[in-house]
Formats: sequence, structure tokens, C-alpha cells
Amino acid sequence: MSTEPSKQSRGGLPSGRVSLVGGGPGALDLLTLRAARVLSEADVVFYDRLGPGKHLSELAPQARLVDVGKTPGHHKVSQREIEQRMIEAASAGAHVVRLKGGDPYVFGRGYEEVHAARAAGLEVDVIPGLSSSIAVPAAAGIPVTSRSVTTSFTVISGHDPLSDEQLTHLAALGSTIVVLMGMGTLEHTCAGLLRRGLVASTPCAIIEQGCTESQRSLHSTLGSLAADARAHRCANPAVIVIGEVAALPLALPEIQPVPAMEVA
Amino acid sequence: MSTEPSKQSRGGLPSGRVSLVGGGPGALDLLTLRAARVLSEADVVFYDRLGPGKHLSELAPQARLVDVGKTPGHHKVSQREIEQRMIEAASAGAHVVRLKGGDPYVFGRGYEEVHAARAAGLEVDVIPGLSSSIAVPAAAGIPVTSRSVTTSFTVISGHDPLSDEQLTHLAALGSTIVVLMGMGTLEHTCAGLLRRGLVASTPCAIIEQGCTESQRSLHSTLGSLAADARAHRCANPAVIVIGEVAALPLALPEIQPVPAMEVA
Repeated sequence: MSTEPSKQSRGGLPSGRVSLVGGGPGALDLLTLRAARVLSEADVVFYDRLGPGKHLSELAPQARLVDVGKTPGHHKVSQREIEQRMIEAASAGAHVVRLKGGDPYVFGRGYEEVHAARAAGLEVDVIPGLSSSIAVPAAAGIPVTSRSVTTSFTVISGHDPLSDEQLTHLAALGSTIVVLMGMGTLEHTCAGLLRRGLVASTPCAIIEQGCTESQRSLHSTLGSLAADARAHRCANPAVIVIGEVAALPLALPEIQPVPAMEVA
Repeated sequence: MSTEPSKQSRGGLPSGRVSLVGGGPGALDLLTLRAARVLSEADVVFYDRLGPGKHLSELAPQARLVDVGKTPGHHKVSQREIEQRMIEAASAGAHVVRLKGGDPYVFGRGYEEVHAARAAGLEVDVIPGLSSSIAVPAAAGIPVTSRSVTTSFTVISGHDPLSDEQLTHLAALGSTIVVLMGMGTLEHTCAGLLRRGLVASTPCAIIEQGCTESQRSLHSTLGSLAADARAHRCANPAVIVIGEVAALPLALPEIQPVPAMEVA
């Protein structure tokens, strides 16, 4: 059993280091206090199109900002190059922040960046961020869990098509299924889950651009989701929710103000 | 397809309302900026032993603080009573904050509170928080996902023993398994997963009091976890991680500082 120190120490060595910072789903005020502080102290920030990158001139006014954004199918800067450039800057003494969308450890290759920086002899810390997998459904009124409905949720990357094994056990587990980066494989996912026994009436939702001013929600069922998403031209960044919880916001009571005195 | 307004409006009605606020795993600076702002504006805060309750005099200096904490087996205030008291205060015009540990929608009955407040005619907003399910493993160096290891994770409540169906499909899914509130059912969970085919050498970890100064980590394997946890008297609040990712921090390179010039 080990007790972790709150911070690693390098003794008298140069102060260069790397912080992987979770930027949350996009809204500026959904950053943590710790993330905001670390950004305000950074010398260099590597960022991309996910997360609160557009607020960086406000959050890190003194830092050099490096856009390493990738748009799907068009890799501006390779993963290996991002790692090398971070290591170079930190080895020269800079406090380097790698700003990630959501949480650094929910997909997004955060662990690879930690590993590369540590292998280069650098101190690294990881600052968690709100994961879109939970925060984006919530922004559309959907709880990933609710006592009477489900006591678990599975977050899965839809970047590559889900395997037969994954589809079989997801269909049977009874967990809320949350798919990130899943628009390109949506048809495969829905067809696979239906074939393995999830009923066509299973409630589903797609939340596009969640937690931003452009947020849109589509409510549907597993049997119709792929067609509905096509009809509405849903596109990444989007969070797909499959399971009974997806219908809960539709069942919420309308706001019917009652006088205070009637409330016992 | 609907576009959500960023805020609900009640027109000319009284300003009482309820905010469910995710307090994150416990460290003060792991609150979001939005949560800190809402707390600073609250008239009344209902809190319990989870989350950053001990920092409330700092975060919400002008608010009336109501402890509705439950310790396991000893319910100080019933769920129904919490809901009624929140509704009463908000109906009388107060801005009521219900501060939850972690995220309001990851277990913890957040949706029930939203439903009750909406049914009473109140405006409700939900402010997401860092879920311990992701942030606590990260604080012990464990990424819930990592590209070469797994592309999904399942978060499950261990409050009640997992069902045969859950154990069967969790064992086969290949997801990282994260169990919250699972110390009381740990033996059942481990034995069940082993019986359904997860190998005894599967890496596991238990992180107790994650993201606080008292954080302790136990690294073990599925075959030994329950005995090791007993030997070290592990207790809730704890996060249990089962899967290959649990071993990753053990494989991290030691920090071996290299001169800046050697980094290409």
C-alpha cells in the first residue's frame, strides 16, 4: 500500500515539466479551478480543436500557444511530433501544458503522452477534466445512471467499429452505453446491437456540440437512430447515448409553479 | 432535433431555484469554475460527507449550510426529506444548492432530486462535476482507457452485489471495470468475475480517499485483491479498478532526467 505525495519532486533539477490538463467539454466555466491556475502559469500551451482552446488568450495570456489540432482525416501534427515538441520545450525548462478536450485519460492518447514525457526524464502531472461522456448527456438532461433504471454505464470509443464481442456483451450487460467519436460507425453500432438482442424501441439520443451554444439533441430509438441521424445531418463532435436513461428528460414534469404554501 | 436554451426561464415568477452541483472527488481546486460561482451565489447549501463539504465556509460564506450527510447504515436525513427541504427552501424564493460528491448523475440519486424539484414546479439546473470513477484512478496514475490496452470502461455501483448477468458480461466485455461504493461487495465481485473467466492475474487497484491528502493505493491482481484489501483494511470511500490499465503506472519509466540537448 502506498501513500502518494501530492506532487512529484525533482530535487534541484531544472523546472521544466509537462502538465496534461483536461479542458472539459468546451464551456470555459466547466474548467476546474486547478486547470485554470495551471494554464495561467504555463509557458507554452499545446492545444487542439477539442476543449476550450478558443478561450486560451484569456486563460493563458502570457503563454506561447501552439495549435496541434487534428481534424478527422487530416493530421496537422502527428502524435509522435506532438510528444517530441512537448518534450523539447519542457527539457529546455518551460512549463508545458497539453490541453486536452474532456478528460486526459478518456481516449485521446493521454497516457501515451505521459509515458513519452516520463521516458524523457520529465516530471508530469495530470489534471482531470470533465469527460464529455458524462457532462454532455447531462447538458441534454440525461443522467448516465438513475437508480430505478440502471446502476452502470459503459463509455466506448466509436472511432473504430465495435467488435462482435463488444456488441454481444454490451447488448446483454444492461449498462447505459455512451459512445464517443461514434458518428462514423453509428450504423454498424446500431445494427450490431439490434442483431444481438437489444430491442428496437431502446431509447437513444445524440447530443452534438454538447455544452456549447450550438448544442443540439436528437431523441430517437435504436431502430431509427441511424436514419434519424442521417436525416438531421448529425456530425462529430457528438455523444451517443443508448439505453433507458436517454428517455428520462422526455418524462420530466413540466415546470408548473405552485405557491410555496402548498409544498409540505 | 431541439436546440436547448442555455438556461430555463420562469418569466416573472419568484427567483427560487435548485442547482445540483457536482463537487468532484474532494479536492477544493477540482471544483469547476461554474460550481464555485454558483456556490458563491447560493442562499442555502445542502451538503453531505462526500465532495468538498469541508470547504463550504470558504466557497459559500453567505449561505445557510445544511448537513444532510448519511454515513453508511445510518441515514441522518432520508432522501425524501432532503428533497422536501430543498423544495421548501426554493419555493420560498431561495437559490438552493445541492452539493453532491463527484458528478450529480453518477449514482447518488441526482436524477430523483431533479425530478422531485421539477414536479414541485421549480427551475433546476445541473452542474456536472469530476466523477471519482475517472479522476480517482488518474490520481493514482491509472488511465481508465489507453489505446493499446482498452477502448472502453464500465463504471458500476457496488452498493448491491453485482448480478450473475452483470458479472458474466463484464468478465467478457474487455472494458476496464471501475466499481464505486464496492468495498462491501468486493469478495463477491472478485469471485464472480473469476468464476466467469477473468484470469486471476488480471491487474487491479483500490484507491482509497482518492484526490485527498489521505489517498492510498493498493495494487494487486484479481485473484488476491479481496485478501489484500482485507489485510490493508481498505474501506470506502474507495474506487476499485479491474483491468490491464491498473498495472500501467507500475510500468512507467522512472524519472531519469536527460540534458535538453539529448532530446531530438
